[in-house]
Amino acid sequence: MNAPVQPSDEQSRGSTPTKGEREFIRRLAAELPGDRGPVGFGHDVAAVEAVSGGLLWTTDMLMDGVDFESGKHSWGEIGHKAMAVNLSDCAAAATVPVAALCAVALNDGLSMDDALELFRGVRDCGAEHGCPITGGDTNSWAAPTVICITVAARPEAGRPPVTRGGAQPGDRVYVTGRVGGSPLGGHLRPTPRIRTALEINRQLNPRAMIDISDGLAIDLWHICESSGCGAIIDEDSLDKVVHADATLLARKTGRPPCEHALYDGEDFELIVVLANDAPGDVCERLGLLPLGEITPERELALRQSDGQCRPLEIRGWEHFRE
Amino acid sequence: MNAPVQPSDEQSRGSTPTKGEREFIRRLAAELPGDRGPVGFGHDVAAVEAVSGGLLWTTDMLMDGVDFESGKHSWGEIGHKAMAVNLSDCAAAATVPVAALCAVALNDGLSMDDALELFRGVRDCGAEHGCPITGGDTNSWAAPTVICITVAARPEAGRPPVTRGGAQPGDRVYVTGRVGGSPLGGHLRPTPRIRTALEINRQLNPRAMIDISDGLAIDLWHICESSGCGAIIDEDSLDKVVHADATLLARKTGRPPCEHALYDGEDFELIVVLANDAPGDVCERLGLLPLGEITPERELALRQSDGQCRPLEIRGWEHFRE
Repeated sequence: MNAPVQPSDEQSRGSTPTKGEREFIRRLAAELPGDRGPVGFGHDVAAVEAVSGGLLWTTDMLMDGVDFESGKHSWGEIGHKAMAVNLSDCAAAATVPVAALCAVALNDGLSMDDALELFRGVRDCGAEHGCPITGGDTNSWAAPTVICITVAARPEAGRPPVTRGGAQPGDRVYVTGRVGGSPLGGHLRPTPRIRTALEINRQLNPRAMIDISDGLAIDLWHICESSGCGAIIDEDSLDKVVHADATLLARKTGRPPCEHALYDGEDFELIVVLANDAPGDVCERLGLLPLGEITPERELALRQSDGQCRPLEIRGWEHFRE
Repeated sequence: MNAPVQPSDEQSRGSTPTKGEREFIRRLAAELPGDRGPVGFGHDVAAVEAVSGGLLWTTDMLMDGVDFESGKHSWGEIGHKAMAVNLSDCAAAATVPVAALCAVALNDGLSMDDALELFRGVRDCGAEHGCPITGGDTNSWAAPTVICITVAARPEAGRPPVTRGGAQPGDRVYVTGRVGGSPLGGHLRPTPRIRTALEINRQLNPRAMIDISDGLAIDLWHICESSGCGAIIDEDSLDKVVHADATLLARKTGRPPCEHALYDGEDFELIVVLANDAPGDVCERLGLLPLGEITPERELALRQSDGQCRPLEIRGWEHFRE
């Protein structure tokens, strides 16, 4: 869950300026011990080693004014989203959510009814995917509301969790649905693609998957970084995955719809990387939309209709931006 | 992790006034489905059912200005405490911590060094108890810093987790160490009583345990509530468990030291309930200090040296107070 936050004037208080979330995570990971198992720090889902041979868990913190707007959205919608972003992380790993913990710091102004509506949103979204709330921590304070949900998930029998790190040059890139236009607010009740992800894992042996939370371009780039490769997006294919909301939003912003598809974020569709001999009929049946291919060059590029390639800017929501 | 928060003037915004954390949790629990396994909502540790036959997990959210003061404490101390409160919850259940997730919303003013110091505090406290950080979520925003840690823990073989709910009239009440005086700040690096808790569980079959986070009186009352009983604290015994910091603090506040022992909170010692035939030599060897006994009457009482009993006020840090 990321959204742009500008460094404040207070930044000079610290001895070193904050240098971007990825840099922070990189330095953090460097200080944490050893091997993190199949998926590690900097990924959405972390392995709980030494327990049950492969339980996974994920946590996401959402803040009022950053990840949601309590003035605009209902508390039920906010709760739904807080759970959905975690379930989407489970989907990206092709794992089955098992249970959740929900911790909150509620702004003092919330009524009991607001707070219960929030938890009902969390609960109902979890229930749709077999993921009950089993506990949590309730707090209140004068600052904006914070919700932090942790979800435990299990891989399916004989199917190891899918990571971001297995893409290889020549592989094909797909998305599970149309993207872009989330700022219009139509994406407030995203459906985590758990069922689709499990089917993809059963039938297509995906090399890598990620959910689109920060934006199509930057999340595809996360796969490339983890896999040590790059990717080309076909412009014709990109045009076909543009969400109707992206087209609507483009009319307001004056930017091309495909830019919204590349950079808006919070779509919660999955980017799926498959070997290039993946059966087309199965892909079609599972609703996978082709987008491009994996390349050895460590860059993102857009291939225009005339075959010409141009580099694609890699940007998206990122905390700690300079 | 609780600290007093006054309802703000904005409270009238909601349709119903907020009515205290316990009431909130009660209403929440009523809306959550079915049986939660051995430990449930409203407890510190929640069972992850259907996974590994008994994995437990716990989450605690700490907020700047409520649970710590970034102006007063170092970020390393704050990180240590954020992990310790979770490990203390694991200790209360007599479980072995396995792994942690750490989610943060860092105030924009934090430098990279501050943020890393925070994580090092979390990591080092976890490492002391075999609990590595396996993942997390990093965010920044303009509001005060929030830290939410989730810890997974396992029961020891053949030893089910200890709950708050097994106390019976006639049982004896102990604490694992001296309490009170935490506002002096000497308790900023609490040692979670994991080793002691495991030994108690192996050797003494405790009926109920809880860690003292909100205060001796209210946390003992939490055991009574869960067990459907009450308790008497012996004044002579209470005098013997008063922490030196409570005596120091009492000089400043003018209140009796034993009041600080009863109500200060954040001690992270354990309250332990044992059957009345628990071997005294083992209790002594494990450092258990006698405090009182469990009664059938659903109230807390203080038995004075002259044998007279008077009711004990039940209060402590609680969010959502009216």
